[in-house]
Amino acid sequence: MDEYKKYLDFAIEIANEAGKIMRYYFSKKDISSYKGDKTIVTLADKEINSYLIKRVKEEFPTHCVDGEEEQFGESKYIWVCDPIDGTAMYARHIPVAVFSLALVIDGVSTVGLIYDPFTDNMYTAIKEKGAYQNSKQISVNDYALEDVRSVAHYDAWANADYDISSVVQELRRKTYFISLGSIIRASMCVASGEFILAIFPGTTHKNCDIAAVKLIVEEAGGKVTNLFGNEQRYDTSINGAIISNNKVHNEVIDIIKKYLKDKQLQGDKKYV
Amino acid sequence: MDEYKKYLDFAIEIANEAGKIMRYYFSKKDISSYKGDKTIVTLADKEINSYLIKRVKEEFPTHCVDGEEEQFGESKYIWVCDPIDGTAMYARHIPVAVFSLALVIDGVSTVGLIYDPFTDNMYTAIKEKGAYQNSKQISVNDYALEDVRSVAHYDAWANADYDISSVVQELRRKTYFISLGSIIRASMCVASGEFILAIFPGTTHKNCDIAAVKLIVEEAGGKVTNLFGNEQRYDTSINGAIISNNKVHNEVIDIIKKYLKDKQLQGDKKYV
Repeated sequence: MDEYKKYLDFAIEIANEAGKIMRYYFSKKDISSYKGDKTIVTLADKEINSYLIKRVKEEFPTHCVDGEEEQFGESKYIWVCDPIDGTAMYARHIPVAVFSLALVIDGVSTVGLIYDPFTDNMYTAIKEKGAYQNSKQISVNDYALEDVRSVAHYDAWANADYDISSVVQELRRKTYFISLGSIIRASMCVASGEFILAIFPGTTHKNCDIAAVKLIVEEAGGKVTNLFGNEQRYDTSINGAIISNNKVHNEVIDIIKKYLKDKQLQGDKKYV
Repeated sequence: MDEYKKYLDFAIEIANEAGKIMRYYFSKKDISSYKGDKTIVTLADKEINSYLIKRVKEEFPTHCVDGEEEQFGESKYIWVCDPIDGTAMYARHIPVAVFSLALVIDGVSTVGLIYDPFTDNMYTAIKEKGAYQNSKQISVNDYALEDVRSVAHYDAWANADYDISSVVQELRRKTYFISLGSIIRASMCVASGEFILAIFPGTTHKNCDIAAVKLIVEEAGGKVTNLFGNEQRYDTSINGAIISNNKVHNEVIDIIKKYLKDKQLQGDKKYV
């Protein structure tokens, strides 16, 4: 069997288990606690992360795991995982939350999977093999910023390393913005042609949020870079992310450069 | 049978039908179009609004209907309805959207119902009889703005009559904000004790968004006023809304008054 297909099948098995765990805890009370940075973590986040580590040890003992809640091992084959993106919504019983997993080899995302267990949509990609939503191949739209159909995503975030409120204020004059509470779910709206853009100001260790997004969005014809238009490695922290339909990418980067100076935060924390 | 109980039973029947319609169209393609103000309307919005008018004509021929998409009749008994709040999310297949219906008598909400068909939560209230989530009585929390558990809701909105971005910026220093894409869904998080606050800058004809919210949140022990702390009539346009756990209400109004001047927009459009 094709090696990458084998990795994707493994990712699908983990995603199905993650979906079961997410649905199980969803309507339960008292499932969450606060982390040092005042963000929230749930029992489901921890259980999914532990399950992934257990299964990687069993199936691919030479690989390692970089999960948002727990890490394991050292290898150039890294399973990069955000167990639940949209935890702030999930913990309040709002069904906008996804599981994300990528196999990153030498810094490059080669297999990616994102699963929304509340609408039962699974997004997958293998490098150079296209992007899929369940069994259907997907592609980005080609709308410009000013198109009436255009929708962009941004979640304001008090503790982000970059304050991009001025950028978003300028973009709002051209494009309709909504906030989903999950950058990964919003990025799948870019991949499937619903949105033109998602902006992510996260930096330290936020490769977990973007590793699978990168592959799926680009295999759907879109583009993913840091806030300043540069390519990223996904075995290390990233310097924010712009996820787009490609068409609007450079215009957005130009607006960002008017307001923000690159702090070159990428690479400030290395996981392997 | 008690008169108000009869009205609530009627509202429940409409809500169950609305839920069926919302779930039916949810995963379909091409369900939406753009209104004059560039906001979106779906086939489901229109179908629910029409169904309500048909059923009110049958059951309460002396009452009238003030729906966000369609109005009918004149009476001091008004069924005020937002067929789908969260349409921007719903139209992109994100399951955050609710149906809202209130019976407003002489400007006052007396029976209120909000239904989330994606998590199957129905919130109801009859004036002076308490607020319920399904069969369980609910109440607001008593957290202060600075409490680590506090969550507030605000959706940035380019065409609102009031620009409350400075207000939200100040509040963000004290409280964690999220954006749900539905003021009504967020208000139910206030009623059930998940959130402390939801801020709504809508004015013209936006009584449809708040009429049921008003009753349910206040029956749960919270408070709903316009942006400047004044009571509202729900047979007319409103001047924005602050939906809170009561405890933080005056503190939020004081911050608003630092930044905004009351344009006294309430009552600029009368529906009966």
